[in-house]
Amino acid sequence: MNKYHDVANKINLFIQENNLTRGSKLPTLTELANTYEVSKNTIIKALEVLETNGVIYQVRGSGTYVRGRHRKGFVNLTDVQGFHSIFREFNLSSKVIELKEIEAPSNVAEILEFTDQEKVYYIKRVRYIESRPFCVEESYYLKTIVPYLNEEIASQSIFNYLTEDLKINIRFSDLFMRIGKLNQEEAGYLELETHDPSLNIESIYYLSNGRPFNYSLIKYHHEEAQFFVQGNNF
Amino acid sequence: MNKYHDVANKINLFIQENNLTRGSKLPTLTELANTYEVSKNTIIKALEVLETNGVIYQVRGSGTYVRGRHRKGFVNLTDVQGFHSIFREFNLSSKVIELKEIEAPSNVAEILEFTDQEKVYYIKRVRYIESRPFCVEESYYLKTIVPYLNEEIASQSIFNYLTEDLKINIRFSDLFMRIGKLNQEEAGYLELETHDPSLNIESIYYLSNGRPFNYSLIKYHHEEAQFFVQGNNF
Repeated sequence: MNKYHDVANKINLFIQENNLTRGSKLPTLTELANTYEVSKNTIIKALEVLETNGVIYQVRGSGTYVRGRHRKGFVNLTDVQGFHSIFREFNLSSKVIELKEIEAPSNVAEILEFTDQEKVYYIKRVRYIESRPFCVEESYYLKTIVPYLNEEIASQSIFNYLTEDLKINIRFSDLFMRIGKLNQEEAGYLELETHDPSLNIESIYYLSNGRPFNYSLIKYHHEEAQFFVQGNNF
Repeated sequence: MNKYHDVANKINLFIQENNLTRGSKLPTLTELANTYEVSKNTIIKALEVLETNGVIYQVRGSGTYVRGRHRKGFVNLTDVQGFHSIFREFNLSSKVIELKEIEAPSNVAEILEFTDQEKVYYIKRVRYIESRPFCVEESYYLKTIVPYLNEEIASQSIFNYLTEDLKINIRFSDLFMRIGKLNQEEAGYLELETHDPSLNIESIYYLSNGRPFNYSLIKYHHEEAQFFVQGNNF
């Protein structure tokens, strides 16, 4: 990790731990440089990272302010993080419906951009927050990138397994959202009625070399789907 | 505009005009510096802006690649832009249902962060894409920032009016999404049935000094709501 990324994380932690709310003013560049024992230049870069990530905003000639405007229970879609990290304070669990190694179906092969036959892990699971079902997820992982997966891993945080155990560096993601209707099976998992609406998110995750390695289609319970997006005019 | 923002716009235009698709490699730093007659340092900064905006990604030791993975009709929520800009190629129109100057209701005052009585413009409109109704929008604009609005402006692009005529510099936005149910009036506007699902987006727009000046609640027709979000792991 770069030194300024490290400092950015520390400042972010400082904001969280002190529950600094929107509009709170951060110390000056000089004060921050003294506190974290780094150069002003490192602080400038760290603040750029935090601004890009929607944590702070800088006003010329005035200072640096906390941007965060969070609503409890709303998930930030611009964060590339697993749900376990986002829902730190909640009790999350997953029930694995199916887990198998298959040849990638053609639509998945196209999305994951390969032309030869490639093996993928297919996983279908229902995810629960505080024992309430909140989504049904179907996910495909390229086996050349994720060589091993089992039910135990899939019933916990696949994201943690990828990043911490397999040391996979997830660089960015593309999400496509629309409203759908649940079929009978999905409605059963989510304890809803057939044809009830769902918020459907297709997501594609990419490695640091730009290669897509995971495609998922997640259908969210209409009452549990609460998402937050930060827009920026850079 | 900074020189590197200007170059970033030019490179972005180059990508669009040449229909460069995902994974296309851009010229080297040196070649770009020669093409745009600027220093390599300016190109480095321009590429950073484009990377932050999800236009490109850079792979260490390899080069710069086009990231864009767009699906026709999906609107990028991370862009702070008006619909008229996003739907450039479509015929957009709006019908103004109501436009009035009022004291801000208390929930709006709280969201726009003021304690004294302040006047706002309240606008309710139905928006159409190629004559199909795609959303019902209720919007509040702080009168101290937007001193004048009329039905003619509101029936066209309010965003263009704010940025081009009033020269308002919109810095960032917060969006909160969830699924809702249409009431009878809204269903009528959207040519749907009462209680049909809608995708509801609450949005707050901020000035460059961090001040929120606009709050909107938009209810999208469930078949027209197609959104795209780019996630980044900076």
